[in-house]
Amino acid sequence: MDEFMQAAIDEARQGRKEGGIPIGSVLMRNGEIVSRGHNKRVQELDPIAHGEMDALRNAGRQRTYRDTVLYTTLMPCFMCAGTIVQFKIPKVIVGEARTFGESKEFLESHGVEVVILDLDECVDMMQEFIEAEPTLWNEDIMEL
Amino acid sequence: MDEFMQAAIDEARQGRKEGGIPIGSVLMRNGEIVSRGHNKRVQELDPIAHGEMDALRNAGRQRTYRDTVLYTTLMPCFMCAGTIVQFKIPKVIVGEARTFGESKEFLESHGVEVVILDLDECVDMMQEFIEAEPTLWNEDIMEL
Repeated sequence: MDEFMQAAIDEARQGRKEGGIPIGSVLMRNGEIVSRGHNKRVQELDPIAHGEMDALRNAGRQRTYRDTVLYTTLMPCFMCAGTIVQFKIPKVIVGEARTFGESKEFLESHGVEVVILDLDECVDMMQEFIEAEPTLWNEDIMEL
Repeated sequence: MDEFMQAAIDEARQGRKEGGIPIGSVLMRNGEIVSRGHNKRVQELDPIAHGEMDALRNAGRQRTYRDTVLYTTLMPCFMCAGTIVQFKIPKVIVGEARTFGESKEFLESHGVEVVILDLDECVDMMQEFIEAEPTLWNEDIMEL
């Protein structure tokens, strides 16, 4: 696994340690990390702070995202997928799409390249969380 | 104009006064304002803080959005439209879609009712801003 997905996984694990939802993301440009983030729904009482959104917020104002790649441990939801399309991020590298995610077709139809690594480590992390905190997970994906 | 769109316009005007982008939103439930917000890209150096996102963030954690209506002065971008779909907000009332916006079909294809009021007041507010601050506007819609 490359250092960017590893950093996204580290972010996810940090989020779980904080009592939050274990999803992490990294924005990369030219082989360097621009910003990193993790889901902060619980920590900041913020429903829009998914891992991808937190990383993009932490990147601050950027002139363009056309030269960036977004790494994320889980397949983006429609909020995050819409953001990727709007921000014109050309490529997303996803840890896994087994436990969640239906935005691949939407992303691809808008020209975003989607690479799914299908990492057992990411699947295990989500499965452990979903079993331990089903209500919190369903709140985050608006399935309550 | 009803009080909710008026509050969204007030938010937009407040944002412009702060040196920001004049787009405002209100989340309504049962005839009451749950939360309100406006674009804060400039004020908070936050590219995800569109008016709709700021209102949803200010609402904090909600059990459901199925009984809410989102009012916004401008047609949502794909970030905000994806968020509306993900959060299962059933109805969006839009001030105007003349100066921006291509998400109507996406929203409707996901079952969201979209009502466009086409208010001259909202169009004038955006046109004044876009003429005065074209670079900032293009940054916000990722067209730099």
